[in-house]
Order: sequence, then C-alpha cells, then structure tokens
Amino acid sequence: MSSVMCQISISLDGFVAGPNQSLENPIGEGGLRLHQWVFETASWREQQGEAGGALSVDSDVVRDLFKNVGAYIMGRKMFGGGDGPWDEAWTGWWGEDPPYHVPVFVLTHYPRKPLAMQGGTIFTFVTDGIESALEQARAVAGDKDIEIAGGAQAVQQYLRAGLLDELYLHIVPVILGDGERLLANVGDPTLEPVTVIASPAVTHVKYRIVR
Amino acid sequence: MSSVMCQISISLDGFVAGPNQSLENPIGEGGLRLHQWVFETASWREQQGEAGGALSVDSDVVRDLFKNVGAYIMGRKMFGGGDGPWDEAWTGWWGEDPPYHVPVFVLTHYPRKPLAMQGGTIFTFVTDGIESALEQARAVAGDKDIEIAGGAQAVQQYLRAGLLDELYLHIVPVILGDGERLLANVGDPTLEPVTVIASPAVTHVKYRIVR
Repeated sequence: MSSVMCQISISLDGFVAGPNQSLENPIGEGGLRLHQWVFETASWREQQGEAGGALSVDSDVVRDLFKNVGAYIMGRKMFGGGDGPWDEAWTGWWGEDPPYHVPVFVLTHYPRKPLAMQGGTIFTFVTDGIESALEQARAVAGDKDIEIAGGAQAVQQYLRAGLLDELYLHIVPVILGDGERLLANVGDPTLEPVTVIASPAVTHVKYRIVR
Repeated sequence: MSSVMCQISISLDGFVAGPNQSLENPIGEGGLRLHQWVFETASWREQQGEAGGALSVDSDVVRDLFKNVGAYIMGRKMFGGGDGPWDEAWTGWWGEDPPYHVPVFVLTHYPRKPLAMQGGTIFTFVTDGIESALEQARAVAGDKDIEIAGGAQAVQQYLRAGLLDELYLHIVPVILGDGERLLANVGDPTLEPVTVIASPAVTHVKYRIVR
C-alpha cells in the first residue's frame, strides 16, 4: 500500500541543516556533515556512476531508500532558485538528469509550467497547498510511496496536518549547535519506532505515525 | 576501567524535561512521558519492591543501568530544595533510603555538611566546581563508573569540559515541543554510537565520546 514518507538525516541535536543557510550554501554551515555517511556508501557511488565505496549496512539502507518511491514532494527552498516569481532559467540543483526519475511536486506560491527533465523527472509546481500536492502525487504514484523530500518546513507541514505515515530518521552523531530544526511546530503526534538499524556511522530509526 | 557516564531519557525533539519546570513539577509539563517506559519494566518494579511489570528488552536495559556505578554527580536542581542557602530540612526527593546506595556529589554554590542516608547513599555537597566533584567521585568509585545523574546543565558542563566518556540516550518517541534541551551549549564533541538497542517503546543508543 502507498505510504506518505519522509526520510532525512538529522543531527543528534535535532538539526537537518546548519546555521546561516544561503542560496550558495542551502544546507548551512556544517550541514554537509549530516550527509557524509551517504557519500561513503557503495550504493550511492553506484547511483552516481562511480565505483568504490563501502558495502556497509549504510549502503544497504541507501539502496532501499528510493526503491519504491512513485512521486516526490518538496518545498520551494529545496528546489532552489531564490524567492519570488520564478527565474525560468533555474531548473533545480541537479543538472539535466535529476536523481528522482519520477514526478516531483514543488510547493510554491508562484505558478510555473511543468518542467520535464531527462531520465523521467518531471517537476510540477503546485500553488494551491500541501493537500493538493499530495492528491496530485497520489494520482501518479499508484501503489508506490510518496516521499516528502524536504526541507524541514515541508516535512513539518505534512506532519502537523496528520498526513505523514512514516518518518525515517538517520540520526548522525554530530552536534551542529544551531541551524534548521526538523521537529518544531509539529504538534504532538504519536510515533512508534518500527525499524532500527545500527551502524558505526549512523542510527537509522523508522517511525510509524499512528492515526 | 572506570568511565564517566551519563544515561538519560530524551524526547525525539531533544528535551530531557518539559516546559514550565517548577519546584512542584521539576521535570516540567509532559516530562513524565519520558520515563513511562522505565516504570513499565519488571526490573524497575523489582527495585521498588513491587511485583509485575514487563520482562522486556527495556527491562534488561534498566537492570544494567546502575550495575557498575560507584558514585553519582548531580546538579543542585536535581537534588532539589530550591535556590540559595540550604534549608537543611530538605534531604532530597527520595525519602530516607534514596535509590543510589553509593556516594552522591551534589554541585552547589552553597556549602552544607555531608548527609548520610539509609542504604549507603551519602550526599556530599561540592562548592568548588565540576572537576573537584569528579576527583572526589573518582576517589570513592574505584574501578566502578561515575554517573552524571543530571540535570541537563550538569551533563552539559561535563560534556563541554571534555570530561564525559559515554552518553547513553534513551530516545523516547515523544515530541514535547518545548522544555529543557540536553544538547545545547556543549561544543562540538566527536561521538560514536557503540551500542544500539531497539524496543517498541524506546531506542537506546550509547555513544562513546572520542578524545
């Protein structure tokens, strides 16, 4: 059955991006430290067309992350290109062939025509709210999952609205001290840990959100 | 070998006490939700002289927590009795026979004579700082561990000073939204997850702090 999921790397003190986020450094100072564990895996390198990397528990986790995703939803800041009306020259951070390969719905206040990239990624810009984006994602995802890709505010909105089924945290043993918090303004949802995977680098905990 | 440890229950959003802490409610609103998993275990109930409780993974965790502790260190707020010079009628929250059964060093700015309770707990009041308290704890603990019992500020001080060897977090799937944060003002220590124990109620992660 299709689930609405979010998987995200988070610091031990609760941040998903470091302080002083900017257009040039959208994950903030030190934010890259949250993702280092991914870059070191064989499965990630394979997806990037590179050899090498570690055949670790983390590599297995990364391999499974995107297996069953039928559509993505992301916030405007994650798509990038700055605030306000669109500069249509901006087509995201990911080049001609973004790593999604399925429809991606971008939450925005500014209308823009859909953008078909190479490899099956189609960015659709949704101006009428998170529920509309979810409906559109469901329509294309079939029995596959819908992944709320980020950033923090998009995840918070879906969690607060009771629309998230699973939150999969990769708890990185790094203390950023400041930055963008994931679990703020989300109300008091009931969570149950359903899967815990330990590695020397990260603790992966998947929570089911109980309705 | 003797380690300096801290084991503590923490909400998924990083709080070890709820908002609006007071003399009457020292763990704050909702703070008790962080400890519910302990109260349900057979080993906790046994320690309280009660029957019943669950013979769960969590029960095993609780049983092991205090096995090898030779001395405790706690902040003044955790010992209780309010601010300022001591009211010597206050002998802690725990009655005549506190659950420590070894020496406990209380960090305070106000001198007070040591207080011997039933069952081997002796409270010693340390006015000359965290390093002095640690030296005194080491002197009595022998090859057993020293546990920084809390609260958050005491833990933060030892972590920031590079004096903590292990941080054992019981990550409770509860979102408190506000309260007392554990991992604030602690600098940027290097942590390695060394033990991860999963249960349906809590995720227990023990971190070694690398020097």
